[in-house]
Amino acid sequence: MSFNLKTYLKEKRNLVNKALEEYLPPVDNPTRNLIESMRYSLFAGGKRLRPILCLGTVEALGKNPEHCLPVACAIEMIHTYSLIHDDLPAMDNDELRRGKPTNHVVFGEAMAILAGDGLLTEAFFVLSNYGLNDLINPTKLLEIIRIISNAAGCRGMVGGQTIDMEAEGKEIEPSLLEMMHACKTGALITASVESGAVAAGASNEARNAFVNYGRHFGLAFQITDDLLDVTGDSEEMGKPAGSDEARQKSTFPALYGLEKTREMAKFHVSKALENLQQFDDRALPLRELVKYLLKRRK
Amino acid sequence: MSFNLKTYLKEKRNLVNKALEEYLPPVDNPTRNLIESMRYSLFAGGKRLRPILCLGTVEALGKNPEHCLPVACAIEMIHTYSLIHDDLPAMDNDELRRGKPTNHVVFGEAMAILAGDGLLTEAFFVLSNYGLNDLINPTKLLEIIRIISNAAGCRGMVGGQTIDMEAEGKEIEPSLLEMMHACKTGALITASVESGAVAAGASNEARNAFVNYGRHFGLAFQITDDLLDVTGDSEEMGKPAGSDEARQKSTFPALYGLEKTREMAKFHVSKALENLQQFDDRALPLRELVKYLLKRRK
Repeated sequence: MSFNLKTYLKEKRNLVNKALEEYLPPVDNPTRNLIESMRYSLFAGGKRLRPILCLGTVEALGKNPEHCLPVACAIEMIHTYSLIHDDLPAMDNDELRRGKPTNHVVFGEAMAILAGDGLLTEAFFVLSNYGLNDLINPTKLLEIIRIISNAAGCRGMVGGQTIDMEAEGKEIEPSLLEMMHACKTGALITASVESGAVAAGASNEARNAFVNYGRHFGLAFQITDDLLDVTGDSEEMGKPAGSDEARQKSTFPALYGLEKTREMAKFHVSKALENLQQFDDRALPLRELVKYLLKRRK
Repeated sequence: MSFNLKTYLKEKRNLVNKALEEYLPPVDNPTRNLIESMRYSLFAGGKRLRPILCLGTVEALGKNPEHCLPVACAIEMIHTYSLIHDDLPAMDNDELRRGKPTNHVVFGEAMAILAGDGLLTEAFFVLSNYGLNDLINPTKLLEIIRIISNAAGCRGMVGGQTIDMEAEGKEIEPSLLEMMHACKTGALITASVESGAVAAGASNEARNAFVNYGRHFGLAFQITDDLLDVTGDSEEMGKPAGSDEARQKSTFPALYGLEKTREMAKFHVSKALENLQQFDDRALPLRELVKYLLKRRK
């Protein structure tokens, strides 16, 4: 079976971008700058990884992924808000993201805070206003809102960013490093596949398999991200390489060395694949996607 | 019929505080500081006006308000997050709120941003995780999430804060001032009563009446707030009087003068009352609550 991951990602990315365009409020006075600030970061060239994982899960279960576009877009809005707030001067103080000036550099700090707040809130509006259709009934949609809000909040992403911030400049235990990443990036990645599984009406067993796929995907993603920061090319990544070290962030390579870290990445990719064994060829995109993490260059 | 507003408010406030305590995650490592920061502002002595409006509406329609506690608490969490972010150095740069140091003064700027993000996200978790019961089915709950997220986001509260920020130091048109307040404080107040109406299964006509009550309540609330800033007692309010003028904020007294502004407050209170005419004695608390705005001292 011929499958081209690059073409698949591009197709899905276009689908997500078109839907985001449709859901977002138009740029109009008197809140023109707010909406422009929200759109600036949302359309700054993100890979749309989380929405694609969500749509790919629906597809793997034999359902039409387009029904899950509001869910996929809401997750991307939450991911984008988290980048805006993480980049703020009071947080990571980053001036460059995906090769472009960060939101607060362009729109100022106050507007960047508000744009983040606006995107986070809008995610729940998109879910509740556009989420229902032939595939997703009210009970499923509420469960999806529960999964996403749990993963994005203090028990998930916001909690992870807290651990990250407090750990800066300190050496942390391997178990806390793993927990930080499980919260900070893993939780929303896992919520992306879990939401897709719930939307598609997965059995409990299938849902658990996807959740495990998501957990290992999230760790493999973070580990390869850390590796890229050491070995990657600044221009290709759109941000300076070596920034973790400069900022005294705990990373997998710093704790385990390059060789062991590469092995860990392979381990989590293989565990992710193992959890997809029970599914047929329709899970091929999800398989290729996690394998690709070992080859990523940005 | 004997009715004591003070007793009523205290009773309802206790109910809300107890429920908030139950819904919030416990203070525990490794995100101890985050949860403490969220709790600090949530339990800093708020009047619980929005949750009480929500519960009062359910009561006015003859239903058990306790079923609406998750909704009422979610709204208070959103209100609290907005205060934390509005107080930030990049925004209003306030160091005192309700007589206590603001969140970022105690926990630092980064943690205050995260606590706000955490509370906003947690509001939707509380709605989706605790919201269903004998009174509120999935369809109603989704409609409530839609109402709240619409009122809290870029078309509501976040939009209003944007207008407010951009207007600082400028003279603005009366129509924009009114629109700013309708968004910044009015939208969430209106959403509080509208959510209650939807929870209680109000007819479209009754729901509209409550929405209009909420709109006039919101304006009367903001106008009396502006009046207090001019004429109030700093100690009683827990924040310095005269701060709007010092900060060159457009206010109703600045635009219309004290006399005209007092008349406007009375007008909106009477319009709010007019919209409750069709309801029986169970709407008494809502009537007394809006009348109280004309006598408020904090």
